[in-house]
Formats: sequence, structure tokens, C-alpha cells
Amino acid sequence: MHHSRLPTTVYLSAPDMVRLVQRKGLPACFGGVAARIEADFLRWNEFDKSARLASHSEHGVIELMPIADAEHFAFKYVNGHPKNTRDGLPTVMAFGVLADVDTGTPRLLSELTLTTAIRTAAMSAVAARALARPGSRSMALIGNGAQSEFQALAFRDLLGIRELRLFDTDAAATAKLLANLAGEGMTLRVCTSIAEAVRGADIVTTVTADKSNATIITPEMIEAGMHINGVGGDCPGKTELHPEVLSGAAVFVEYEPQSRVEGDIQQMPADFPVTELWRVLAGTAPGRLNDEQVTVFDSVGFALEDYSALCFMRDTAAELGIGEIIDLIPRTADPKNLFGMLLQTSPAAALLPEVVLADAVAA
Amino acid sequence: MHHSRLPTTVYLSAPDMVRLVQRKGLPACFGGVAARIEADFLRWNEFDKSARLASHSEHGVIELMPIADAEHFAFKYVNGHPKNTRDGLPTVMAFGVLADVDTGTPRLLSELTLTTAIRTAAMSAVAARALARPGSRSMALIGNGAQSEFQALAFRDLLGIRELRLFDTDAAATAKLLANLAGEGMTLRVCTSIAEAVRGADIVTTVTADKSNATIITPEMIEAGMHINGVGGDCPGKTELHPEVLSGAAVFVEYEPQSRVEGDIQQMPADFPVTELWRVLAGTAPGRLNDEQVTVFDSVGFALEDYSALCFMRDTAAELGIGEIIDLIPRTADPKNLFGMLLQTSPAAALLPEVVLADAVAA
Repeated sequence: MHHSRLPTTVYLSAPDMVRLVQRKGLPACFGGVAARIEADFLRWNEFDKSARLASHSEHGVIELMPIADAEHFAFKYVNGHPKNTRDGLPTVMAFGVLADVDTGTPRLLSELTLTTAIRTAAMSAVAARALARPGSRSMALIGNGAQSEFQALAFRDLLGIRELRLFDTDAAATAKLLANLAGEGMTLRVCTSIAEAVRGADIVTTVTADKSNATIITPEMIEAGMHINGVGGDCPGKTELHPEVLSGAAVFVEYEPQSRVEGDIQQMPADFPVTELWRVLAGTAPGRLNDEQVTVFDSVGFALEDYSALCFMRDTAAELGIGEIIDLIPRTADPKNLFGMLLQTSPAAALLPEVVLADAVAA
Repeated sequence: MHHSRLPTTVYLSAPDMVRLVQRKGLPACFGGVAARIEADFLRWNEFDKSARLASHSEHGVIELMPIADAEHFAFKYVNGHPKNTRDGLPTVMAFGVLADVDTGTPRLLSELTLTTAIRTAAMSAVAARALARPGSRSMALIGNGAQSEFQALAFRDLLGIRELRLFDTDAAATAKLLANLAGEGMTLRVCTSIAEAVRGADIVTTVTADKSNATIITPEMIEAGMHINGVGGDCPGKTELHPEVLSGAAVFVEYEPQSRVEGDIQQMPADFPVTELWRVLAGTAPGRLNDEQVTVFDSVGFALEDYSALCFMRDTAAELGIGEIIDLIPRTADPKNLFGMLLQTSPAAALLPEVVLADAVAA
């Protein structure tokens, strides 16, 4: 046996991820994650897919999102607790794992709070690239919380959005966004109502967090040719779009069985027509038919996007030498002798030497 | 806001767990985990339960096992890859998380490979205490791999087993068990066949690992009054007991919807009668009816047992000061300003001071 060749587990902490994104650059992360999402969506049928497992409680939800292909198993743990910000905690916190299907070894344990913000924005941009009118330059951004800057910059980098129309019921959130995005090359316009923000926009992005059936976007706000990027309606009882906005549009989703339960389309009959986005990317279903059509991307977040993001982060961590090897799994000389670890006088002696990081995280 | 009061995440690595078990003592761990399992099984209806999510591949399975009550959400990641030992890797590797339901914050990330061995043995002993004949002293132990010593010692400590009859197709595995359990106060008898090991035993424990429909225990081996502790048959296509062993016995399971798919009872008709063990513990269903009856605990491993084990390990880690606080989740001054973390010149500056471990892991 070659102990030093046993697969290892690399850990990327939240501070590691901040360093990784700073060194790689946020535009390169958006581009890289978007490219992986597009490539993975094109091999949709190679994945063992399931709707995420959600555990609902009074103030929020905790979800496990597994997915696998022949090589990798991935899952994300993620919560959604809109009231958390009152206690100084993020609404959404996440981490995840990438494992080898062949042996079951977890190879990467990573923070996914920051990563989820990046992959959600990249996913939205991938969808908008396929669905919004070419030449879209202005975007309404309804909800200016933790996800908002990521949406703004991904749409700047991947679509060419140059003007943002901002609205949030929390003026401090909008002020924070203004401060963060000053000097980022976009015109920022603060609006006093959702209707004002939406008026004339090419794209309307909703990223609100209330866990309630809200009606952020109503039919009279909709203009011909708009693309609605609905991100905040993502669990049962949590919606943002008026049903008539949906019935008047061509609606696209990630994974239909999950979106029927969690998406804004939970308000619609079970046979309301939707198209899975991967079909548009693969060219087997039409996207936008003309410049007058209203399109909706009813996004809820699907496990495959996290798989794509975990793969990108694993490769980027290896490239930049970020992360550390952790002893999440016992490394014994004889795998049938788990009990023997307890007989060691020094547990460290039972452990095998670490291999170098770059080697450990190589795909 | 009191940043230092934000909940933290404690990490228990595999070497940490070895230290914890060594310092607490394995008998105290068996006793503590068994007591927690019994207490948690008695409040069965307070838990949000589901069958585990299994992702099957050619050589094994990867599973996610979530469960929640009003306070805690727990999940375990665990694989089962019988061929792993050929490559120097454990057949079963696991880790898990305990999180606050109120906020979704992960509070404990722990190795669960060693812990699973302890909780599986504790669960088996809890079931046998309720189902085996009082005064049972001898146990056949079929399969002498990674789980076997834990079964032997839990049954010694919690039931008073004093004689083991050992069999494994791999003689080296049996030799390892003999070396590990020498001086542990049990008579160890190596047998040359399963039939020889089973003959005259009060309890028969099967902990084999082949992912195939095996028939380890056949009807002619069964004697009146035996208790069968079937541990190794735990996923579709992986069984150990002949169907007539089941049809001739009173069969007890953990969580029926999961056991119908994964347990040895997968071989039986859907209406084959079984009793959930918690009902026996709660006194609402009979266990063993007389000294002649054959009882079977068709164990597959249920998420609640991992919940119980995680709680015990969390409390014991706090008591012994073992574990470290990790930055799995970003700690920001303003939770709506996730993007602001990327603007810090030193990511470490965006992090808040750690609180002391004992404080962090307090329930």
C-alpha cells in the first residue's frame, strides 16, 4: 500500500474563499463558474438528479442538495432564514463537499456562502444570455441585500449591463450597494418604488428574502420584451411574481420537479408550461421567440450549479495554492483495523504523512 | 450587535475523535451514546424523519441522512464501498453536522467514521437489551472487519456478553480482532464455519460488507430463543439473512419506510410484519414474547442514531476541551454586506474574534 497516495480532503474556509476570489478576480470567477455551468448543463442527462431535501421550520429552511455523475458526488448544505439579519447573521449560509464516486472519499470541503452568491449570479447571467434581448443594457435590481452586488457585477461582466435601477424597502441596504459599486462602471439610479425601478428596464432582477408569498412584480409593470430574472422566490410559500406575470410570459426553469414545488410557478397549475433551461442551451428547445416576448427565468438554485461551482473552486484553489488538508477521515495503515486507532498511545502516530496540496487537489 | 456572541462552528477531526474516545473511555462512550439513543427514540414523534438519500454507483453507495427536531438539524454523509479495503481505504467513511434550526448555523462539524462504529454498536446493544433473552452471555460474530470490535465491546459492556465465536472469510481480519481484544475479558473462540460459530450462541451478530445478496445465516442454523443482530445488510441488493430466517422470527427495525428498502426485509413481501424498535422501548409494542421465540433486529442505521451520537460528542468535546473553532461561515459585521468581504485588503480583518471553545460548544 502507498499510504501517501491515499486521497486527501482539502478544506477551503470562508477566509480562504475571500482570498481565492480576490486573487483570481471576481470577473474571472463569474466567467469560470458560468462556463462550467454551461458545460455541465449540456451534459444534463449524465447526472443523477433529485429535488433537494428541505427541512422547514418556523423561521426558515435547511436544505441538502445532492447530485452525482459517474465521477463526482457533490452536495450543498444551505439554509434560508430571512430574519437572521436582525441577529447579525447572514440569511443564507452554506458549505458543501465534492467526493469521489469510486471510493466515497470526500475530496473537498468548502465554504459555499460566498460561492453560492457567485454561482447564483453566474447562473442568472447564463440564463439571461440565452433569454434576454440581445443588447440589454439596463437592469432593475429589486432587493439590495447580500446577493445584489453579485447579480449586478455578473450582469455587467457577462451581459454588458451598464445601468442599474435600485429598490429596497431597507434604505440602508441600497446605500450599502451604492457604496460597494461606486466606481464599477455602472450608472446607479436609486428609485422610490418598484414600479419606478422596473419602468423601461431591459432586465428585472428580483432578489428579495421574505419567506412569504409576496407580489413584488405585478402585471401592469411589465413591458414588451422584458426579461425577468426571479431569484428570491425559492421555497414553498416564498414567491415574488404575480401569477399573471407568469401566465403572460415564456417561463424557464432549472430542474422542473424541484421548481414546481419551490419556484414562483408553485402558484400555477401543475400543467402550466415551462421549459428547462438546459434544453435552450443545448438547442433542443426555443428560448426567446422575438423582441416583444416577455421571458422569465424562475430560478430556485439547483444542485448542479453547486457541483459546477465546487469544481471551479477546487481547480482554482489548486492553481493558487489555497486551502489546507484536513483529517476529516481516519487514515489507517489497515482499513479493517479502525479499532486499532484507539490503541495508539499518540493518535497522531496513527495518521499518515500529508501529501502536498497541489497533488491532493489535482482532479 | 455583539459579534463575539455570534454562534460558531466547532470542528472535530478524526484525530480529535480518537483523543476524545481515549480520554472519555470507550465504555463511557458506548454508555453515553446508548443512553442518548434511548432517550431520543422515546421522543420519536418529535423528529422530522425521512429515509436517507442514497446515490448508488457500480462499487458502492454515498448517502445523506438528515433529521431534525425543533432545536437541531443533523445530517451525516456516509459511503459504503466494500472494495475500498483493497486500496487501503475504509469501507465506510463518514462525517456529519449538527445545526441550529432557529438560524441554520452549523454548530458542529465532526468526523463520524469512528463515531459511526460506536453508535452502530451502541444501537445494536440497545436493541439487544430490549430483545435478547435476559442472561445472554455468548455471541457469534460473523464478519471481523472494522465494525467487529465495537460490536464485541458494546455487547460486553451493555449486555454482559462474555464469549465470542468468531468467523470471517478473511483469516487476517479474525487475527486482527484476536489481537485487539486480547485482555478485554472475553473468551474468544475462532470458528471454521458460520454454522460452528452460530451453534449454541445466545446472540448472532452479522457485520459482513459484501454488496451482494448473501445468505450468511440459513434456517438450519437457527436455535430457539436466539437473537439475531443483523447489521451488514443495509442497502438494496445487500442482505445477509435467508428469507426463512426472517419469516420464522419476530422482526424489529429502526424506521420502517427506510428498512423496507434497505434492510434484510427487502426480500420479504411489503406487508411482512415488522415492529419499529422505538415502540418496544416506549412500551407500546411487545418485544420478545418468550424464551423460545427468535428475534431479529434488522438494523440498517437511521439518522436519529447519528443525531444522538453528534449530541453526545458535542457535549463530550466541550467537557474535555477538544476541537477547534473553524471559519466555515463568513462572519461579517453587516450580514447584508457579503460583498464587502471582498473589499477588505486583509480577509482576516473581516473576521471577528473567536470566542472560547467551551463557550462555543455549550448546548
